[in-house]
Amino acid sequence: MKKLLLLSNSTNPGEDYLDWPKDYLADFMSGEFKNIVFVPYAGITISYDEYTERLNGALGKIGLKATGIHEATDPVKAIQNADAIFVGGGNTFELLSQLYKNKLVEPIREKLNSGTPYVGWSAGSNMACPTVKTTNDMPITFPPSFDALSLIPFQINPHYTEATLPNHGGETRKMRLAEYLEINQDSTVVCLPEGTLLHVEGETMVYKGKKEGKVLTYGNEERILLDQDIV
Amino acid sequence: MKKLLLLSNSTNPGEDYLDWPKDYLADFMSGEFKNIVFVPYAGITISYDEYTERLNGALGKIGLKATGIHEATDPVKAIQNADAIFVGGGNTFELLSQLYKNKLVEPIREKLNSGTPYVGWSAGSNMACPTVKTTNDMPITFPPSFDALSLIPFQINPHYTEATLPNHGGETRKMRLAEYLEINQDSTVVCLPEGTLLHVEGETMVYKGKKEGKVLTYGNEERILLDQDIV
Repeated sequence: MKKLLLLSNSTNPGEDYLDWPKDYLADFMSGEFKNIVFVPYAGITISYDEYTERLNGALGKIGLKATGIHEATDPVKAIQNADAIFVGGGNTFELLSQLYKNKLVEPIREKLNSGTPYVGWSAGSNMACPTVKTTNDMPITFPPSFDALSLIPFQINPHYTEATLPNHGGETRKMRLAEYLEINQDSTVVCLPEGTLLHVEGETMVYKGKKEGKVLTYGNEERILLDQDIV
Repeated sequence: MKKLLLLSNSTNPGEDYLDWPKDYLADFMSGEFKNIVFVPYAGITISYDEYTERLNGALGKIGLKATGIHEATDPVKAIQNADAIFVGGGNTFELLSQLYKNKLVEPIREKLNSGTPYVGWSAGSNMACPTVKTTNDMPITFPPSFDALSLIPFQINPHYTEATLPNHGGETRKMRLAEYLEINQDSTVVCLPEGTLLHVEGETMVYKGKKEGKVLTYGNEERILLDQDIV
């Protein structure tokens, strides 16, 4: 049974790294995990070692520890031997490119379909979707495809906000997602404001967090998501 | 001699469509232009007809009129016969995809290298760069390449701003561009705040507008651009 924890973001402004989701994480990761594999590929201006260290600083508080996949001589084997997989935020395009380059897309998908727990935040949550077409990130590198892990049947928009900068034009987030739905009319977008997440267990997907989320579809009214709602 | 007018944006908040650049446009387009071809492909939630009409509403004020390329039975011929080419904003990925689909990348490049004036705004300015890797747009569709028209040797970031949303995380624009430069270390990014433009005549590129622009390179201090500065 698929087990996914898909976070909008790692950290709320002014708080410690991965602080807001730590109770959710501890709950999701209850039991013993000897071999948590962390994929730091989305990190660009931070080294993979530093990124893994930063993660372990946060995981240590709930008794967990991860190993960076960049330390493995055979990354595919590292995935196959993992008893949980964590994928961190950063740049979605670089993350996806590295997953393809290291031939990890299929191995991760198979591993997660067999029930290994997955925790992703920001770009790591985009990765769980059919495609990366609803990322907020800048396309700083060209991946061989926009197809991602397809662990869930809809798209996530992380860091979702309807706030706009005063006296600045450019598209709002809602306009961007309306454009996405115009081009991809059969798709559904789940909007996760910062500090919210989706908890997937098999076919059941539960929205969690204090802020209101949204489900957007082409031409339809938007549906509001509240804490503990089934998506 | 190459002649390009590359605008950050069409319209400042609260103003009429294409109002802020109208004096620059009138100056750039002085003389007689019988056959201005407009490429509306970046428009997603507006039809190509509506987009062309909106443009002509603005161009009429300075005595100009454009024809949408979607009306041409042979778009390549339409480009070859144009005496000016306008490319409007919207979604960069859809615009680039349609240029490839309609086999227009090479014909437009050739035409502009031979001296036909080009006016682009927002996504239309991204198109003039070597790649679309510094667009702010959502990757709602997968183009066959991120390579664009390469009319200038550097990247533009349109709608540039250093403002951030209060109490919202996610990467700032500066962080996104720093990530771009980390992955593309030989590249240069010219940041155009709204209400500013680049005016290119042959090898001379002049920055114009009231707000401060910026030139960003990997590892270097940023260079400030003021009105009439040579880039």
